[in-house]
Amino acid sequence: MKIGWIGAGIMGNPMVHHLLKNGHEAHVYARHPQKVQNLIEEGAVLEESIASLVQHSDVICTMVGFPSDVKEVYGTIFEHIEPGKICIDFTTSSPSLAVALAQQGKDKQVTVLDAPVTGGDAGAKQGTLTILVGGPKETFDQLQPVFSAFGKDIFYCGVAGAGQKVKIANQIMIANTLQGICEAMTYLKSQGCDPALVIQNLQNGAAGSRQLELLGPKMLQNNFDPGFYIKHFVKDLRIALDQKEVKLTGVENVIQEYITLMDQGYQDLGTQALIKYFQ
Amino acid sequence: MKIGWIGAGIMGNPMVHHLLKNGHEAHVYARHPQKVQNLIEEGAVLEESIASLVQHSDVICTMVGFPSDVKEVYGTIFEHIEPGKICIDFTTSSPSLAVALAQQGKDKQVTVLDAPVTGGDAGAKQGTLTILVGGPKETFDQLQPVFSAFGKDIFYCGVAGAGQKVKIANQIMIANTLQGICEAMTYLKSQGCDPALVIQNLQNGAAGSRQLELLGPKMLQNNFDPGFYIKHFVKDLRIALDQKEVKLTGVENVIQEYITLMDQGYQDLGTQALIKYFQ
Repeated sequence: MKIGWIGAGIMGNPMVHHLLKNGHEAHVYARHPQKVQNLIEEGAVLEESIASLVQHSDVICTMVGFPSDVKEVYGTIFEHIEPGKICIDFTTSSPSLAVALAQQGKDKQVTVLDAPVTGGDAGAKQGTLTILVGGPKETFDQLQPVFSAFGKDIFYCGVAGAGQKVKIANQIMIANTLQGICEAMTYLKSQGCDPALVIQNLQNGAAGSRQLELLGPKMLQNNFDPGFYIKHFVKDLRIALDQKEVKLTGVENVIQEYITLMDQGYQDLGTQALIKYFQ
Repeated sequence: MKIGWIGAGIMGNPMVHHLLKNGHEAHVYARHPQKVQNLIEEGAVLEESIASLVQHSDVICTMVGFPSDVKEVYGTIFEHIEPGKICIDFTTSSPSLAVALAQQGKDKQVTVLDAPVTGGDAGAKQGTLTILVGGPKETFDQLQPVFSAFGKDIFYCGVAGAGQKVKIANQIMIANTLQGICEAMTYLKSQGCDPALVIQNLQNGAAGSRQLELLGPKMLQNNFDPGFYIKHFVKDLRIALDQKEVKLTGVENVIQEYITLMDQGYQDLGTQALIKYFQ
């Protein structure tokens, strides 16, 4: 399949690498072409504009930063796209925007899937991402060769926007779980105990979680290198709160803590730096 | 070892069973003797008072409900105990009470350990509890034959009260994690998605947790049978908040939700009934 890719950053770059490795023809557009030099060397075609990328691709993939970026990029894509083509937005973005893009696509006889991923840069590099897909089931089935190039667990979540909704549910759980880890460690420390006891004694029991396993040790070592940026997590939590149907008290609480950290200049630290808020 | 046991309820009863199975001599006191009939049949000695239980035992174990029960029972134990004996409180209770009991014991040349457990009634029945122990290390070492009768992971946490503190840290993490699961499911439902997607698609990823694995399916089935009572969880969270050193916003939030459920008469449901608050 001829695949166009917009947004070959920390996540997108290794995803394109896996597409190439799996025999796909990849066309890439990058504002900073030197960042995709490795992909060109592997056989990707560098496109000088989104217009030419769209023209040369059957499937146009996007993996950008914020919903505002998604909106802007799709504005340009839709200007140039022809009927019958398919778009996949891998960005974690707002469900309502995903629904709007799907509708705008329909008006141009173009199918747009939302397909946010989980698994971080490690999952992207290893080609073991979880992919959460919303849109027409037949298009989901048709695109298995694309998804399976870099995905391990590939889930059909439902109609347009459903992939984004499930991804946001994922972030809601992570936010509250991180809060619990930070409160538990902070409580122990305040009571004169070693916060490391949380991991040493509790990880394998009823309080165990993947976040504790992955980020607990980093918190204890004051290692705040980003696996996932605070600024992107805050974006995701804003999307969670950007609906009027339910009140998410836990998320409201956690986002305030992260915003405090961002105000202190910590937006590019990893999400485990939540522990700094408690220190 | 001659072991006395006060509080042979849902947790204590199978713990005594494992003591007997492991060749210990067990003396039990119960306000309702018919509840320990199974243990008598297995060879336990029924004591008619705490005084006689204390007299006939080298190690006196307690597993009661609330810190007020612990305080009352130890009042009676300390009236009758002789120097050189050992007490172990397996109840999840307040760290400050554990420190006070250890001090009162010292005055009578008696060692008191705090040793709250995790693993629930299933862990008690299978003899696979996690035991979190605070007190003198040499007494901890000396009592391995007791702990190992019903424990799998047996952790020395530090001085008197440390076992309780680590247990409370455990409950703090669980409270926040449960909040995240409920918010994620409620969010998905409000957005027209199946809340079951939380388990089906997210359990094996970064948002995965033991609580989601254990209680997520029960929430979806409206199965609120108690593995762990709401009223006991609220007691534990009150202990977490009963210190002035740190503010635990997440716990404050969750305890309010559980108190609302208790006001509605749900104190004897399992902790997974938190989802009812969101429905």
